[in-house]
Amino acid sequence: MAKNDDNDLKKIVSHAKEYGYVFPSSEIYDGLSATYDYGQYGVELKQNIRQYWWKAMVQMNENIVGIDASIFMHPTTWKASGHVDAFNDPMIDNKDSNKRYRADVLIEDFIAKIEAKIQKEVDKAAKKFGDSFDEAQFKETNPRVLQNQEKIDTINARFKKDIEEEDFVDLKLLIEELGIADPVSGSKNWTEVRQFNLMFSTELGSLADGASKIYLRPETAQGIFVNYLNVQKTGRMKLPFGIAQTGKAFRNEIIARQFIFRMREFEQMEMQFFVKPGTEMEWYQNWKEKRMNWHKSLGLGDQNYKFHDHLNLAHYANAACDIEFNFPMGFKELEGIHSRTDFDLKAHEEFSGKKLQFFDSETEKSYVPYVVETSIGLDRMFLAILATAYTEETLEDGSSRTVLRLPKALAPVKAAVLPLVNKDGLPEKAREILDELKFSVNAQYDGKDAIGRRYRRQDAIGTPYCITVDHQTIEDGTVTIRERDSMEQKRVSVAEVVSEIETAVDLKPLLKSL
Amino acid sequence: MAKNDDNDLKKIVSHAKEYGYVFPSSEIYDGLSATYDYGQYGVELKQNIRQYWWKAMVQMNENIVGIDASIFMHPTTWKASGHVDAFNDPMIDNKDSNKRYRADVLIEDFIAKIEAKIQKEVDKAAKKFGDSFDEAQFKETNPRVLQNQEKIDTINARFKKDIEEEDFVDLKLLIEELGIADPVSGSKNWTEVRQFNLMFSTELGSLADGASKIYLRPETAQGIFVNYLNVQKTGRMKLPFGIAQTGKAFRNEIIARQFIFRMREFEQMEMQFFVKPGTEMEWYQNWKEKRMNWHKSLGLGDQNYKFHDHLNLAHYANAACDIEFNFPMGFKELEGIHSRTDFDLKAHEEFSGKKLQFFDSETEKSYVPYVVETSIGLDRMFLAILATAYTEETLEDGSSRTVLRLPKALAPVKAAVLPLVNKDGLPEKAREILDELKFSVNAQYDGKDAIGRRYRRQDAIGTPYCITVDHQTIEDGTVTIRERDSMEQKRVSVAEVVSEIETAVDLKPLLKSL
Repeated sequence: MAKNDDNDLKKIVSHAKEYGYVFPSSEIYDGLSATYDYGQYGVELKQNIRQYWWKAMVQMNENIVGIDASIFMHPTTWKASGHVDAFNDPMIDNKDSNKRYRADVLIEDFIAKIEAKIQKEVDKAAKKFGDSFDEAQFKETNPRVLQNQEKIDTINARFKKDIEEEDFVDLKLLIEELGIADPVSGSKNWTEVRQFNLMFSTELGSLADGASKIYLRPETAQGIFVNYLNVQKTGRMKLPFGIAQTGKAFRNEIIARQFIFRMREFEQMEMQFFVKPGTEMEWYQNWKEKRMNWHKSLGLGDQNYKFHDHLNLAHYANAACDIEFNFPMGFKELEGIHSRTDFDLKAHEEFSGKKLQFFDSETEKSYVPYVVETSIGLDRMFLAILATAYTEETLEDGSSRTVLRLPKALAPVKAAVLPLVNKDGLPEKAREILDELKFSVNAQYDGKDAIGRRYRRQDAIGTPYCITVDHQTIEDGTVTIRERDSMEQKRVSVAEVVSEIETAVDLKPLLKSL
Repeated sequence: MAKNDDNDLKKIVSHAKEYGYVFPSSEIYDGLSATYDYGQYGVELKQNIRQYWWKAMVQMNENIVGIDASIFMHPTTWKASGHVDAFNDPMIDNKDSNKRYRADVLIEDFIAKIEAKIQKEVDKAAKKFGDSFDEAQFKETNPRVLQNQEKIDTINARFKKDIEEEDFVDLKLLIEELGIADPVSGSKNWTEVRQFNLMFSTELGSLADGASKIYLRPETAQGIFVNYLNVQKTGRMKLPFGIAQTGKAFRNEIIARQFIFRMREFEQMEMQFFVKPGTEMEWYQNWKEKRMNWHKSLGLGDQNYKFHDHLNLAHYANAACDIEFNFPMGFKELEGIHSRTDFDLKAHEEFSGKKLQFFDSETEKSYVPYVVETSIGLDRMFLAILATAYTEETLEDGSSRTVLRLPKALAPVKAAVLPLVNKDGLPEKAREILDELKFSVNAQYDGKDAIGRRYRRQDAIGTPYCITVDHQTIEDGTVTIRERDSMEQKRVSVAEVVSEIETAVDLKPLLKSL
């Protein structure tokens, strides 16, 4: 399908709702901003993605184990991690509209408009000069382009300095000097720029009991850091070893958008790999490669992934990159791989007063390990798979179908059992097959409407196989198996149908390909 | 093991920590009250319980599907459900100690003390009269017992009236008249009794953006109710049908205690079954039976379960019971089965202004379905299994072992592969076996310490099978498989060992037994 098209995302949102994958949350109350619920098929796809990640990370790796830490953590955790002091967005209010905006986004949007002007000049010239057009040369010589590029460079230099130095007085001045207006009201009457913390807070316990302000975790990683010695000791782990975790995290994003791509409540799948200091770059490269292989094993198309190395590193990292995926909105972050040094463990040592050192029995020395992290958003992974699977096809007979070409091992329903007609003992036979099949895989009975319509319905759900019971089944004990993508049919005996499906949707070949 | 013993719970808490099942949360910061993290084995056991529930409910039942609704819901949801107005505990503060208590618990504790006095009289007489002692007759005739019983009845009558009528002025008077003192300070200087809502709240969005107070869901059920029509329509479901969900819920309990039995953050596994009004009692009975069968299938001992029918029904129910389990603290609620009528759906109709009726194509009538709910705490289920599995044994040779007799299909590690010695090619052979086994089950390599010590370690983790590679393995290609509970060993060929383990820990026989 074509990418970089807003229409594609709209189609996917609509298909996801119509076929029980994703519903707007609390829809009967007109929804809750940027919150979604997974429907009857969505929940199965989400579970299957989570399970594939878990098996690939934990079950396949002798030196990686899992944990499940609670969402509520001791509030000092977030002092140590830097989230209380530094997990902020700079916000500005318009005094006339009373709307609040991210100050940095206002400036980025302003720059994007100038960039669009440059692009317009380029497109115009490209059209005029045809094949002989040299874009680089044009940009270096065209006075209007040069002027606009200079403007961008000047704004960017000041903008980056303001952000780095947290100079919010100048950030406000910059907004005013650029004449940026509230996109809603057109007013230029702005308040000061203020920091807004992205953590959700709540009160634990009742007041007289000594209620304390706690936070909903903004990342699952800290649950691993505070438990790392417990796991290491009780699991008798030696460096290098990893701890994996999946679970909810919460960020009070001002701008939550693009369907399930950026939500305030989301699920992470994170793994922290503890290594000997000095070996972290080797492991960072190793995990970059391993994680990319995991993604590519799903068959969504190798061209849909690319690495994006971070040039500006976060305060805790000495190397970092994203695995970007070609979403309907273009290439965007799907997973992050970070060499986090010993920043977090050292900070927890300082704030807790506890030693968090690993005793290396080979060198007989104790030290704080370095950490390489892989962190992927489960909801984003879901969107990547759903969006890539969504296909509208024109068939040979001129009719069209919508099919979800999901990786078979991850499909919510692995097989549907269809009696050709609802008589002559066919429904009973179909149910017999279902009753055996359901112990192996998630399967479904579908007996209503013409057979062609049922095939379309299962295509739209993404069911890899339809098993059709017809009159020949009663005669010779065979059924047809129809494959979703090729729509090819073959006859197999009833005795073999369960093992045939089991093999075709098995996760093991994916795990073995890693 | 002996039950009703606080020591048992302590032993289990300690074993759970020592063997990587459950750690106190944020332990390096001296923990967070009544919050726990699941360690490397705990997370696997928890996942396996969740999976067994899910397969039994969703995969096995053609008319039950799952969803995964978000923790954040539109705040009006909790007005409609009654949680904003009625999900309260009556609290009272002691002015001297500044401690807060649940007023009802203070009175219940007071009554329990009088009951203990009666029991003391009974025990004394029983000892004195021996076999000829008639307890019922004694209680009806002994003046001290009668006097105390009358006292209890008088307090109870007033107490229940106060709670029912929410007469907190009289509740305070009652506490004062009974002379109840703060158990910490001994002071009788009490404040008024006030209602304290058990929901955690937080602010969504930033202030100028129109921040709204939202709640962390206190139950997962409402996520199912608000989505029921979306699921019914997109899934083309007909009554009766069910929607299942697992997920976190949060309650700001004043008294959170007894390890993972009552936590402020916990996980529910709920299923709402939508039925035609008038058929709910039949389905209620049906689900009571089905859920009890599910529990008994795990082999924890049928005598450890009993039904407790509710006499005082919640405002939304027309029948309700608990499945109680024999925890180390005695019989306590493990699962609730409730006939919730159309209370929730009708309330959501009223508050949302949307019709939530099901169109019955057979009778051509529309109506709001009735709901039968099954609701189980995953953490409690975890505790039930762990506590029952925990066994201290004296062996024939006089030595002792601690073993977790976990249901094999749910055990975190299904098999450990042990080279008898770390030389002569045995470790390599062991790893070969592990490398095949890991694609089927969660397995582990264990090469350190004497073989007997490794068996004890795997017993303490609850690993059902140890596969030992010895010198004979190199000669004739066989290994020993040691079974955890009987400690019996048998030799099987390496070629068969994976399928042998797969079969022995398979979940299918449990599912087929339902």
